[in-house]
Amino acid sequence: MKYYSYEQFRIDTNKLIEKTKVFEADAIIAIARGGMTLAHCMGEGLGVRDVKTIRTELYDHTQKRDSITVENSCNLEGLQKILVLDDIADSGDTLKAVMDDLKQKYPKIEFKTVTLFYKKTSIIEPDFWVNEANEWIEFFWEKDYLSV
Amino acid sequence: MKYYSYEQFRIDTNKLIEKTKVFEADAIIAIARGGMTLAHCMGEGLGVRDVKTIRTELYDHTQKRDSITVENSCNLEGLQKILVLDDIADSGDTLKAVMDDLKQKYPKIEFKTVTLFYKKTSIIEPDFWVNEANEWIEFFWEKDYLSV
Repeated sequence: MKYYSYEQFRIDTNKLIEKTKVFEADAIIAIARGGMTLAHCMGEGLGVRDVKTIRTELYDHTQKRDSITVENSCNLEGLQKILVLDDIADSGDTLKAVMDDLKQKYPKIEFKTVTLFYKKTSIIEPDFWVNEANEWIEFFWEKDYLSV
Repeated sequence: MKYYSYEQFRIDTNKLIEKTKVFEADAIIAIARGGMTLAHCMGEGLGVRDVKTIRTELYDHTQKRDSITVENSCNLEGLQKILVLDDIADSGDTLKAVMDDLKQKYPKIEFKTVTLFYKKTSIIEPDFWVNEANEWIEFFWEKDYLSV
């Protein structure tokens, strides 16, 4: 288990701002909750005011594979280039479900995916990522706010 | 001008988690972008998975007072108690516009407002706040990600 501090996040997020600058996104979508702090800080750094959030719900099925549904997909009419952010592509199931949903609903919009961590076993590799995850990551937004 | 660091934010956010715990919110709404990091961390601390974002747009009018419109108000059907978060109630215009919009659309939902900073001249006092703002606050999510 590895604690991921704000100071490390700050360095990595500035790297992602540098990497994604050329894309000139006109909006950012955070996958809640994990992608929200990243979306906030990248929105500030990139000067993107239009920052939205979407959520997924995991449904347990006893017999078959769990399924992920995307909730409350935002209205993206009029947008052309969007960064979709999450903290980590672990199994990649969440990111893939979100991207499938977005691409199907908005075939004309160009999407790029961004995460802080990427695990080689993920079913999807984000377009932009910083660290390879080899162990369980304990993000500061989890650890620093644990209710006692 | 006062720099507001992550370490101070961490202390204040834990105070807000303590203060709002008894409310037992079933969802959190962040006002973008300012309330997003707060919403992420409070969602973690309070164990609230349903975290949404709404945005406001400021329209300039040459002759009269600027007006604020609330964009893409989330679907809140089925929810009962919601915390609405922003970084600061400064003029209070944004928070008031959002609350007017939400209360009008969802008269049965109980809303509580939460900010890190509150300025005495704000037209609305949040239900929960930590610091009184007497000077311009430079939040870490602004300062730490300035593009050079």
